[in-house]
Amino acid sequence: MNTLTKTEYVQAVDEVIREFLSRQQTSARYASPYYEDLWKEIERLISSGGKRFRPRLSILAYRAFGGKDVEMILPAAAAQELLHLSLLVHDDIIDRDYLRYGVENVAGAYKMHYKELVHSPEDVGHYANMAALLAGDLLLSGAYLLAAESKVPATHIVAIQKLFGQAIFEVAGGELLDTEAAFRAPNSITSQTVALYKTASYTFILPLMVGALLADLSEEKWEYVKTFGRNLGVAFQLRDDILGIFGDEQLTGKSTIGDIREGKRTQMIEQFYNLANEQQITEFNRYFANTHVTAEQAEIVRNLLVESGARAATEQTIEGYELEARAALKELPIEQACMEELEELIEIAVRRNN
Amino acid sequence: MNTLTKTEYVQAVDEVIREFLSRQQTSARYASPYYEDLWKEIERLISSGGKRFRPRLSILAYRAFGGKDVEMILPAAAAQELLHLSLLVHDDIIDRDYLRYGVENVAGAYKMHYKELVHSPEDVGHYANMAALLAGDLLLSGAYLLAAESKVPATHIVAIQKLFGQAIFEVAGGELLDTEAAFRAPNSITSQTVALYKTASYTFILPLMVGALLADLSEEKWEYVKTFGRNLGVAFQLRDDILGIFGDEQLTGKSTIGDIREGKRTQMIEQFYNLANEQQITEFNRYFANTHVTAEQAEIVRNLLVESGARAATEQTIEGYELEARAALKELPIEQACMEELEELIEIAVRRNN
Repeated sequence: MNTLTKTEYVQAVDEVIREFLSRQQTSARYASPYYEDLWKEIERLISSGGKRFRPRLSILAYRAFGGKDVEMILPAAAAQELLHLSLLVHDDIIDRDYLRYGVENVAGAYKMHYKELVHSPEDVGHYANMAALLAGDLLLSGAYLLAAESKVPATHIVAIQKLFGQAIFEVAGGELLDTEAAFRAPNSITSQTVALYKTASYTFILPLMVGALLADLSEEKWEYVKTFGRNLGVAFQLRDDILGIFGDEQLTGKSTIGDIREGKRTQMIEQFYNLANEQQITEFNRYFANTHVTAEQAEIVRNLLVESGARAATEQTIEGYELEARAALKELPIEQACMEELEELIEIAVRRNN
Repeated sequence: MNTLTKTEYVQAVDEVIREFLSRQQTSARYASPYYEDLWKEIERLISSGGKRFRPRLSILAYRAFGGKDVEMILPAAAAQELLHLSLLVHDDIIDRDYLRYGVENVAGAYKMHYKELVHSPEDVGHYANMAALLAGDLLLSGAYLLAAESKVPATHIVAIQKLFGQAIFEVAGGELLDTEAAFRAPNSITSQTVALYKTASYTFILPLMVGALLADLSEEKWEYVKTFGRNLGVAFQLRDDILGIFGDEQLTGKSTIGDIREGKRTQMIEQFYNLANEQQITEFNRYFANTHVTAEQAEIVRNLLVESGARAATEQTIEGYELEARAALKELPIEQACMEELEELIEIAVRRNN
């Protein structure tokens, strides 16, 4: 029952988010019903999906490091979901996506609202993205604001704010590098840097550190928390890359042909170019990053990744990260009752199939 | 010498900003020179212009309410310039502008960088705006982060964070409403709401409240600070609207035909539609919001605003706000040495000609 997926925690986090958004919505109504609409869209979107992974991880870390009052840290935990949504909303602008969690995202919803009001379709899209831009700003600011409402000592709040600032610094850098990797020279931006900055930073290190800090874990142990999070985070990303090409679409819910068509340069692909022979590379390049690739041709790409040893090499790299994470974990004082959930977390990061 | 424009304060604020940005730049370099480039562009932009009005106003309020250690509050003051730049950078995305302070803004600079790397011109613009989007996010987060570095008690920092959150909530709402006003039914969004939310909130109320809070002004006086800031802020915006049509282009540096062509629905325009007769309205509508308007036709618009009494009515409204501001100021304990600067501030808000 005491597992990472414990539904009471998810519900408690959702309650904090709902209460926060409802207050913002009420304040927005004083300005204008049109401003209230923006907050309604934010609430609709956050209610439509998301696993609350980061808040749950913060709560787990807090309990694992001896914290007893989960209630008290809920705002700081929930704030990370606002940050996450902020990044998704802005990410969707960058990727020109109008769907998220299987429903319209903020820009998608505003496209429908504005269609009736704005004549030029180009302007409809532009203004819809503007609403999404503002929504993302509000969520980013909202993350700091909600964290500031935690019923913990002010010194802790300030320390958490600094962790937020560091994580945002890293994830924005990761986002920039990930985008630029698409058109800069191969290898000028490594997939490992992107994994570290874009994924490990705010999905693992931040939630773990927030929990550690609020549980008053002694400062000399923080480096181990970061090492644990960094290694799990990069392993998580590598597993994601493998699932993106070799996953079971039924389990992941994602197409395994998208990354091949897009030519996403993951670490596995970098490994391929290191390990493959000339003939394999020639064949690979015929299909990789080709938007018209067929299911059969995608299967050729998969076979080449296996035959060259790139897939196995990536699996080995993941194993290396797992060992590093486990070594760091051994240096940390963990509540015995939380060990099972931490094992589950490691499994999610390194061996999940969905 | 002890005036609002006191150059030592501007220099001290700039020093704090420069030091902060230089630290971020160094950290970014560890990730990638491409990430460092983004921070270089941010620093280039902030060094190219801006009057540091908000930091200066915070310092003035702090001193006026009895604060003695300006050095201590510099990060909280300077943080507001980061917030301001964040809003400008995102605002420029919304307005599709690539220039700011007479130089390329972040998107403008990245257009040049990416031109060499990305083939489709549409994609160049898109990715350039993505870099600007991330820069704005980093500056928004940076504002919270820099404020958190103030050498003031942690409880004060948390209180300031909440003021930041409130101001961002208001200014984002103002931005949304201002943009939607262009295509929603006339009068469904009033110019006063926009002025209050978009300008007064973070340009006047926030800096004044940050100064008041850090000077430990007693809480029962805060409402007067807000009233002072709100009235000055709206007066400032109304003066801006008048200068946008009647200003001396030599002094303001802004064209006085742009707002007429764009059909910007300021309070003066709302007044015009209330006060003018049918014939005046017919003539006005012929030229107002007409992108091809000539200098002579713009002069007809100006005459109609005068003849209808709209301009005088707006001047009277400004006077009303000034009286409200002065009444609130009387309720506040002000250091005598700062009265001259506060008078100067009121003059800037209500009677400036540039």
